[in-house]
Amino acid sequence: MSNRYIGQPMKRQEDGKLVRGQGRYLADLPSENLLHLALVRSPYAHARLLSVDTSEALKCPGVVGVYTSSDLPELYAPASAPRDAHGIPHPLLARERVRYAGEPVVAVLATSEALAHDAAQQVFVDYEPLPAYPEPLQAETAPAIHPQLPSNVALTRKTVAGEVAEAFARAHTVVGGRLVQQRVAPSAMEPRGVLASWDGIREALTVWSSTQMPHDLRSAVAEKLGLAENQVRVITPDVGGAFGAKINVYPEEILVAYLARRLGRSVRWVEGRGESFGATIHGRAQVAELEMAFDAEGKILGLRGRVVADLGAYALETTLGNAPGTMLMLQGPYEIPALELEMLGVYTNATPTGAYRGAGRPEATYYLERLMDMGARALGLDPAEIRRKNFITGPFPYKTRTGARYDSGAYGEVLQKLLEVSNYPQLRAEQAQAKSQGRLLGIGLCSYVEITGYGWETGGVRINPDGSAVIFTGTSPHGQGTQNAFVQIVAERLGLPPERIRVVQGDTLAVPYGMGTAGSRTLSVGGSAVLKAADLVRDKVARIAAHLLEAAPEDIELLEQGWGVRGTDKAVPMEQIIATAFNPRKLPPGLEPGLEGQASFALKDANYPFGAHLAVVEVDPETGQVRILRYVAVDDCGVVVNPLLFEGQQHGGIAQGIGQALYEGIIYDEEGQNRTANYLEYALPKADQMPPMEPHRHQTPSPTNPLGVKGVGEAGAIAATPAVVNAVLDALGIAHLDMPLTPEKVWRALRR
Amino acid sequence: MSNRYIGQPMKRQEDGKLVRGQGRYLADLPSENLLHLALVRSPYAHARLLSVDTSEALKCPGVVGVYTSSDLPELYAPASAPRDAHGIPHPLLARERVRYAGEPVVAVLATSEALAHDAAQQVFVDYEPLPAYPEPLQAETAPAIHPQLPSNVALTRKTVAGEVAEAFARAHTVVGGRLVQQRVAPSAMEPRGVLASWDGIREALTVWSSTQMPHDLRSAVAEKLGLAENQVRVITPDVGGAFGAKINVYPEEILVAYLARRLGRSVRWVEGRGESFGATIHGRAQVAELEMAFDAEGKILGLRGRVVADLGAYALETTLGNAPGTMLMLQGPYEIPALELEMLGVYTNATPTGAYRGAGRPEATYYLERLMDMGARALGLDPAEIRRKNFITGPFPYKTRTGARYDSGAYGEVLQKLLEVSNYPQLRAEQAQAKSQGRLLGIGLCSYVEITGYGWETGGVRINPDGSAVIFTGTSPHGQGTQNAFVQIVAERLGLPPERIRVVQGDTLAVPYGMGTAGSRTLSVGGSAVLKAADLVRDKVARIAAHLLEAAPEDIELLEQGWGVRGTDKAVPMEQIIATAFNPRKLPPGLEPGLEGQASFALKDANYPFGAHLAVVEVDPETGQVRILRYVAVDDCGVVVNPLLFEGQQHGGIAQGIGQALYEGIIYDEEGQNRTANYLEYALPKADQMPPMEPHRHQTPSPTNPLGVKGVGEAGAIAATPAVVNAVLDALGIAHLDMPLTPEKVWRALRR
Repeated sequence: MSNRYIGQPMKRQEDGKLVRGQGRYLADLPSENLLHLALVRSPYAHARLLSVDTSEALKCPGVVGVYTSSDLPELYAPASAPRDAHGIPHPLLARERVRYAGEPVVAVLATSEALAHDAAQQVFVDYEPLPAYPEPLQAETAPAIHPQLPSNVALTRKTVAGEVAEAFARAHTVVGGRLVQQRVAPSAMEPRGVLASWDGIREALTVWSSTQMPHDLRSAVAEKLGLAENQVRVITPDVGGAFGAKINVYPEEILVAYLARRLGRSVRWVEGRGESFGATIHGRAQVAELEMAFDAEGKILGLRGRVVADLGAYALETTLGNAPGTMLMLQGPYEIPALELEMLGVYTNATPTGAYRGAGRPEATYYLERLMDMGARALGLDPAEIRRKNFITGPFPYKTRTGARYDSGAYGEVLQKLLEVSNYPQLRAEQAQAKSQGRLLGIGLCSYVEITGYGWETGGVRINPDGSAVIFTGTSPHGQGTQNAFVQIVAERLGLPPERIRVVQGDTLAVPYGMGTAGSRTLSVGGSAVLKAADLVRDKVARIAAHLLEAAPEDIELLEQGWGVRGTDKAVPMEQIIATAFNPRKLPPGLEPGLEGQASFALKDANYPFGAHLAVVEVDPETGQVRILRYVAVDDCGVVVNPLLFEGQQHGGIAQGIGQALYEGIIYDEEGQNRTANYLEYALPKADQMPPMEPHRHQTPSPTNPLGVKGVGEAGAIAATPAVVNAVLDALGIAHLDMPLTPEKVWRALRR
Repeated sequence: MSNRYIGQPMKRQEDGKLVRGQGRYLADLPSENLLHLALVRSPYAHARLLSVDTSEALKCPGVVGVYTSSDLPELYAPASAPRDAHGIPHPLLARERVRYAGEPVVAVLATSEALAHDAAQQVFVDYEPLPAYPEPLQAETAPAIHPQLPSNVALTRKTVAGEVAEAFARAHTVVGGRLVQQRVAPSAMEPRGVLASWDGIREALTVWSSTQMPHDLRSAVAEKLGLAENQVRVITPDVGGAFGAKINVYPEEILVAYLARRLGRSVRWVEGRGESFGATIHGRAQVAELEMAFDAEGKILGLRGRVVADLGAYALETTLGNAPGTMLMLQGPYEIPALELEMLGVYTNATPTGAYRGAGRPEATYYLERLMDMGARALGLDPAEIRRKNFITGPFPYKTRTGARYDSGAYGEVLQKLLEVSNYPQLRAEQAQAKSQGRLLGIGLCSYVEITGYGWETGGVRINPDGSAVIFTGTSPHGQGTQNAFVQIVAERLGLPPERIRVVQGDTLAVPYGMGTAGSRTLSVGGSAVLKAADLVRDKVARIAAHLLEAAPEDIELLEQGWGVRGTDKAVPMEQIIATAFNPRKLPPGLEPGLEGQASFALKDANYPFGAHLAVVEVDPETGQVRILRYVAVDDCGVVVNPLLFEGQQHGGIAQGIGQALYEGIIYDEEGQNRTANYLEYALPKADQMPPMEPHRHQTPSPTNPLGVKGVGEAGAIAATPAVVNAVLDALGIAHLDMPLTPEKVWRALRR
C-alpha cells in the first residue's frame, strides 16, 4: 500500500464542529412533543420495598403517568453470562427489593424534564432497610442478596498450569499480598441518555441512544418489546465519551422504549451528572491476593492466588466479563512456568460494574507490574532488568498458559526503545542525585501486552454519480474519530479526495449490521471490512478502466493522472469511470451498473498490542503531593493509519490511567451509600495535573487482518496506572500502597 | 418459480393505514421551527416585470424574508432536452418577464403558512402586459416568448419510412383530419410539497419531497446548490398520487432547498389546490393533423401528417419527452408500410406540460384508434375487423418503422379474447335492437401497444439476526403499492413469511441509487433487481445449508420443512441458517458473515405491453349525457405478481382515461388565463360516473427481464380514452368530435 493517505496525520473532519460546541448529543435532539422521564431511585443500598404512593405525583402539573414495576410487564435489561455463571438481570424498575442505592424504583413521565423531576419528589416509597454488603470480600460470605442463589458468588474460575506448589517450594524469593483495584467511575463527558419514538402508523420504533452498540440495542429492544428487528431503528447522535460504560443495554433504554410504545409517544430520559454515579456501571472493583515466586536470578517461577471481582447488584451485559478477561491476561508479556489462579465474581449491594477502558487488562497488568516491581525490590534488581529476564520471546503466535494466543510480540524491543528514548540510565542517575538532596524522585516502568479486536463487522463504500462517496460502518465511535481513518483507507484505495468522503455510522437502517465500538476493535475489524468494500469497488473501477482503455483489468493501477496502465500514457480519470458505472449502455458485459461495495470481515483471532511506559514522579515530602515530571510511552499497535488518532488515544488513555493511580476511587460507606457521587468528592484528573506526554510508537504489523493493525484505545489506561504507581512507590521506597495514591495516603505512608 | 406467493392476490400491507387516514404526507411532517414559503405568482400569462415592492410585506407579522429573483443567484429548475432541442429552463423566480399565469415571482418566508400567505398579498408587482399565446398553433408563428430563440418552435422531428406519396396515391380510402389531445391536469390527490432542513453542524441538507424521483432530486439539489451528493439526503414521505407530474424537479423544490441552506433553517412549501392548476405540469396538449390511407380491403397503406405539441412556457425535465414518445408509438400494433410524420414542440404562454400517465402513448394510441374507426366507418367494416386485418403478427422482437422494438406481442389474441369475454356479436345485436327503439347505444374498441420500463435499478435484501427482513429499492411509488409485489418476490425466493418483510424506499441514504417510479418501470426493472438481490441471499443460504447438512449447495432447495435436499429428510430450518450466518465461527470457509444481498439490474430494452379494451355507452338524446354501460379490458403485461395490484392499476388508469374522454380539459382564454383552475370548472370523473369494470388479463411473458413482467401503470389511461370516444361516436354515427365529449358538445352534435 502506498502512503498518500494511510499513515498521514490527517486532521479529524469533525473537530471544528466539536471545538465550537456544535456537536449534537442526545439531549440536543429536537424535543417537539416529547415526554420526559424522571426516575425515583432507591436511597437504600438494600431494602424491602413495602409500598409506593404515587397519588400526589399523579396530581402534579404536566404529569402524564407514574409507573411502578407492577404497572409494567416483567422486563429486565439483558445480561450476558457464561453458562456456568449466575447472571441475574437488572429489572427495569425494582421488584420487591432494592439492591443498591440508585436502583430505579418508580418512573415518572411528564411534559417537561423539570416537571418530571418535581413530580418524582412527590412519590413516596416505604422501605424496610436490610443489611447492606457493598464490599466483595464481605459479600462473599454474606447472605445472598438474590434469594434464588445459594450465595453471592455468581462466577468462579480456576486456571492451573505447571507445578505451582513445587515452584513456590523452590523459590528464592516470594512477593505479593493484597492488591486492590478500586472502583472507579468511567465519567464520560456526556452522561447516558435515550429517546424513543413510536410511529403507530408504521408500527415502528426509532430509538436514539448515547450507546456504543446500536445494533445490539436494536436486538435487545426488539426482543424485550416483542417487535421484529425491522420495526426498530437505532440511531446514535454524537456520543460524548463512553469508555465501555455505554456497551451495556441499560434498564432505562428498555424502559424508555417500552413507554414510548405503550403510549404511542416520544419519550426521553437524560441521565443527570449525579445520577450517573449510581446509574451507570463502575469499572475495575477487584481485590486480588497474589504471590509471585522468583528464583535467585529474578526469573519467575510461578504465580498463584485469587482475584475477587465485585459485580455490583445485577449483571448487565459486561458485568461478568471483566473477571475472566483479567484471568486471560494474567500471564502478561512474561514466561510464567506455573500458575494457580482462582477468580470469583461476587454480587454486592452496589452499582453494577462492567467494562471500563481496558476491562480486565488494566487489572491484570497492574497486578503483574506491581509484583514485578516487588520482586525487583526484594531481589535488588533494576525494574527494567527483571522484566527483560522474563519476557516471552516467541515464537509467535504464542499460546499462554491462561488461554491467550499472542499474534505477535516484541516485548524486549519496546522496553529497549523506551529506555533509550527516555534516557533511562541518566534518569536513574538524576534520581540518585535528587535523593542526596532530600528530593523524592521515582521512576516507574510498565511492560504490558493486551488484547484487542473481536467478532466481525460490516463495511460499505458507495460512490455517488457526482463522485462523492459514503462509507458505511457498523462500528459506532463516541469521540475517537475513527471514521477519519476509514476515510483515509478509502481515499488511499480509490484515489478519491478525503474531503469528498463522508462516513455513516450509528444507524441500524443505513448500516446492514454491526457490533459497535468496543474492545479497540474498530480499525482491525471495522477498518478491514471497509478496506474489503473499497477493494470491491476498486476491482470494478479497474474493470471499467480496462474496458475503456482496452487493457486487461489486472494491468490497471491508480496512477497520478487517473486509472491506467503503468508505464503508458493510457489512463482514464475517475470521473469518466464513475459516469460509465452509472450508464449501463457503456458498461462492459457482465458488470452491473452502480458503484457500491458491501463486505464483512470476521477477525479469526484477537490481536495483542503491547508496549512499555515510563513515568518519572516527584513526591512532595511535606504534603504527599505527587507530581509527574515525565511520561514516556512506547506503544506497538501494528500499522498506524493516522498518527494523530493514535496519539489522541495514547493521551486520553494515559490520563485515565493516571486518574486511577493518583486520584479516582468510589467509596461506599458501611450502609452502601456512595460517598463520592459528585465531582467534588470524586477526583478526576485535571489538565494541570497531566504531565507533558512523550508518545512513541513501534510497529509490528499484526497478521490477523489485512491492514496489519491492532487496537490502541485502551493501551494508555492499561499501562499508565502501574507505571505511575510503581514510580510513586519507587520514590517512597515502599513495597506497596493501594490506589489512589492521594496526598493524604502518601503523606501518612511517609510518616510511618 | 413456484406459486406460493408470486401470482397471489395478497392484500397491500399499507391499506389499513391509508384507509384510516393515517398516511403521513409532506404536509403531515413535524413542523417544529419551520419557516413557511408562500409564492407570489404572476396574474398575467405574458408580461414584462417592471418593479416589485416588498416593503409592506416585510412589515407583516411573522415575515422572515421576501425574495425576488434579484435576491437569488441565477438558478433554474433542471431541464432535460434532446441535443437538437431548445430546452429553456424554468427560473426559480421570474426574471424580467413572466411567461405564464401562475409563474412564481416573489418568495415570502414567514413563521406560519397563514402569515406567509397574508404577507404575499402585500407584495406589489408592476407588470407591463404583453400579447399572450396560450395555444400551440398560434404560438408556432407568433413572436418568440424567449427572446434568445428564433421562434417558439423548440423541437422538430421527422420520421419518413416507405413510399408515402405512392401509398396515398393508390389509396382506396383516406381518412383523417385534426385530432386534438386537450390539455389535462394530472390531479394527484396530494398536491406537491417540499420541506428542506439545513444542518449547519454536519453541513448537510435533508429534503423531504412529494416526488417520484428521490435520487434525481438529490442530484439536482446538490448540483444547483454546489453541494456534494453525499451532503444531500432526499426522503419521500407517503406520496398521494403523482401520475408522472412529480417526476420533474420543480422550481419550488430548488428554491426551498436554497432558502433552507441560505438561512440555516427548515423551510416548507405545500402547494395549494388551486395553485396546483397553474404550478404543476399539465399533460397531453397536442394538436394532430393526420391522414391514414387504406386499400379497398381495409389494409393500411400509409400514415402521414404532423403533431404539434404544446410545451407551455418552459422546459421541465419531462416537457420535451411527450412529443418524441408520441412519434415512437405512432405505429401502434399495426403494420403500416409507409409513414411520413412531423412533430413540433412549441413554447406557449401556458403552464409547462410534461409526463402524465402514459406520456406520449395515450396521444399516439388515440390518434391511431380514431383513424382506424374512421377507416372502418368509411369502408363499412366492423371496427374489430379492420383492426384484425392490420395487426403485426411478428416475428418478435419486431422493429417498427418509428424506431420501437416490440419484445413480444399477441395483438390478435387479446382482441379475440376481448370479443369473446364481452360477447361482441351479441353486443352488436343489442345495439341494432336498441337503435330500432330510438336508443343511442355505441360500442367502442381500442387495440393498443405501449412501452414500459427503462434504465436500471438497485435492489437489496437484508436479513436481520431475528429473521425479519428488509427490502431496499430505488423505485419510489406514490400509492401504487408496488412494494407489496417486492415482498412477494422475496418471500417466494427465501421462504420467509411476508409479514416479516418490510420495504425501505424513497430514501437516498438507505438506498444506494435509484431512478424512481415512472414509466411503469417498477416491477420489470426494480423488481428484477430485488429478485437478483434475493437470489444472492438464496445462494448464501443454500451454501450454509449445504455446509450444515454436508451436502452440495446445488442440491439444496427450499422444502416444506426448511432448506434441504429434495427426497431426503435432511433439512435445516431458516432460523438455524440465519444464526449460522451471524456467527463466523460456524460458517464454512470463504463465506463472509451476514445475510445481505445488494444487486442492480439494467433493462437492455423496454418492454411493450398491449391489450384491447371495449366500452359500451348509451347517449341520452335529450341531454347529450353519456353513460358507460360496460367496460371490458384485456391487458397483457406479462407475468402478474399480484393480481390485486394489477387490477388496481387497470381501474385507476381506465378512470383517468374516461376522465379525458368525457369530462376533463384545461381551457385558456385568449389572454392566457386558465378558466378551469378549480374542481368546479375542471371536471374530474366521479365515482358514480364510473362503469362497473370487467378487467381481464392475458399473459405473454416478456423476455426482457427475469420475472417476465411488463408494466401496467398506464395501460388503462392509454386504452380507455379512445375506447370511450369511439363508443360515443359509434352511438352518434359521427366520424369525429374532439374531447371532452361533454353533454353540451354531444347535444350540439346531435342537433347538427
